[in-house]
Amino acid sequence: MVKTQLGRSTWEFSKVRILSSAVAVGPLEGQGPLANDFDIIHEDLYIGQDTWEKAERKLFEEALDLSIKKAGLTKDQINLMIAGDLLNQIISASFTATYSQIPYLGVYGACSTSMEALALSAALIEGDFADYIVSGCSSHNSTAEKQYRYPTEYGGQKPPYAQWTVTGSGVAIVGKGLVGPRVKYATIGKIVDMGLKDPFDMGSAMAPAAVDTIVQHFKDTGRNPEDYDLIVTGDLASVGYPIAKKLLLEQGYDMSTVYNDCGLMIYSPNQEVFAGGSGCASSAVVTYGHIMKKLNQKEFNKVLVVATGALLSPISYQQGESIPCIAHAVAIENEED
Amino acid sequence: MVKTQLGRSTWEFSKVRILSSAVAVGPLEGQGPLANDFDIIHEDLYIGQDTWEKAERKLFEEALDLSIKKAGLTKDQINLMIAGDLLNQIISASFTATYSQIPYLGVYGACSTSMEALALSAALIEGDFADYIVSGCSSHNSTAEKQYRYPTEYGGQKPPYAQWTVTGSGVAIVGKGLVGPRVKYATIGKIVDMGLKDPFDMGSAMAPAAVDTIVQHFKDTGRNPEDYDLIVTGDLASVGYPIAKKLLLEQGYDMSTVYNDCGLMIYSPNQEVFAGGSGCASSAVVTYGHIMKKLNQKEFNKVLVVATGALLSPISYQQGESIPCIAHAVAIENEED
Repeated sequence: MVKTQLGRSTWEFSKVRILSSAVAVGPLEGQGPLANDFDIIHEDLYIGQDTWEKAERKLFEEALDLSIKKAGLTKDQINLMIAGDLLNQIISASFTATYSQIPYLGVYGACSTSMEALALSAALIEGDFADYIVSGCSSHNSTAEKQYRYPTEYGGQKPPYAQWTVTGSGVAIVGKGLVGPRVKYATIGKIVDMGLKDPFDMGSAMAPAAVDTIVQHFKDTGRNPEDYDLIVTGDLASVGYPIAKKLLLEQGYDMSTVYNDCGLMIYSPNQEVFAGGSGCASSAVVTYGHIMKKLNQKEFNKVLVVATGALLSPISYQQGESIPCIAHAVAIENEED
Repeated sequence: MVKTQLGRSTWEFSKVRILSSAVAVGPLEGQGPLANDFDIIHEDLYIGQDTWEKAERKLFEEALDLSIKKAGLTKDQINLMIAGDLLNQIISASFTATYSQIPYLGVYGACSTSMEALALSAALIEGDFADYIVSGCSSHNSTAEKQYRYPTEYGGQKPPYAQWTVTGSGVAIVGKGLVGPRVKYATIGKIVDMGLKDPFDMGSAMAPAAVDTIVQHFKDTGRNPEDYDLIVTGDLASVGYPIAKKLLLEQGYDMSTVYNDCGLMIYSPNQEVFAGGSGCASSAVVTYGHIMKKLNQKEFNKVLVVATGALLSPISYQQGESIPCIAHAVAIENEED
């Protein structure tokens, strides 16, 4: 029997590749340091639509269409769409599934959705359940502000440790083809809830979940930080990033030369985004734009993407509950020579 | 290579079983015709908690604990929890995952969540990614009313074609053991949106999606209605059920002797539930309570559960969008002699 399971919940894949990927982003992301790695940059947050929700969906549709085109496929050749987003009832993903007419499984992992979808896609490809799966997610700053916080017109002030929801969508075509970086491992995280309750301070809340999954990944695979060219968390930003780094060092893993965070990479320090980027598009657009480009150019050969999610809701926060956090890690790498 | 993929998105499994299942429900469900098939019946909708949301979570935790106990397992032997619910940010499932401390993947398919979770669980077991997966969902009448409709204190009137959200949770342990009904096939649906916009009339909106998936299942597997002892949809209720039946007949499938709907089965005609049950617990508690019992007693040998979901949100409705619907079908059966 092929061994695909390592430890409790780490999966090993032998024949799964990311055949193509595409990214569509909003104006602020298009002014950041990774702009050249994004396929489609919009100068208007409305993306030509009449609501923010339709704008987010439009980004998703664009990234989906372009990823399928880049893979040389058509929609009817894709077996499955595994996707999610941050909006209630994941309407961005579901309405994009109406548009795509691809059999659809919706997933929700807050900002960990990107790697949840990729891990499941890789497992279904490895298990011969599909030839091609489209895997992705979206977030939009204005839909997230409206739903999770205050109407932007209200002009509510935020603490400096708050984060800025990334506007964008990142989509990958996962399959068995002959080219493209391999999806080698996925480690599925469990909930870590340290009792934090401030919904603006996601970085502090999520950092221990990221650490839990990274340590589990190292234990299950026998790998260490130096086995990777880059390990990125999804959206811990400037508050959560140093916490994760310190907690990992305390557990014996020195991440100093290899570790970065998508929420820190996507914006430059002079952009006014508080502590940095967040939202499930943070890890999705950095991974499927920037990291995939570097992997394809062989500048990176082994990357571990650890998407981090805060699984609270406005209701759970209002009822005084703490924030359940989770992280899922996926190793994406070029073949050994 | 083992062939696990039939057609575009039907999966065949050879070694997946439902090792155990458990169901916890509220008072109205405990007064219905299937009461004897439910493990835990609460007489109080609050389930001893101080909010409806915590009450829903409590049902989920109880069903989860009991299903694991029935399988003779402990939580730390379970590799993965695949779960979802109807609440924003699927907090019932996510907080239950905090409680369980089992590595967790959240899914959202509205009322199709039950079979989405079971299909994914079966695929991951078949692909050797896990030994045991806990798969389930929950809904609660009062959390759903509060979130999707009006505060119940408001006393808003409903049309007779509205449905009644089932209060309950159904959970299954999926694995490779030697006993228990087999999960034989799963057919993943695509979105069907016929342009209907009335959020009270889910049955009419979802019926064509159920039909699309059932027909696809028959085509992909070569099966016909008479191959099953029972085919159930999740929650089409008294409005959607005859529509689905008629549409299937028009496509050449006479379902008259084999077809029922979980939303019609769970309540008796004299219970005041408008057109019948809905919510993802509708298919979950009927399947994991009633149907599993009948399969284990060999009264049924082959059952197709077609969970139906309406993937709208209050925002998408308010913005004038129609209702995207989906259905996923899973065949659960005893071994051939």
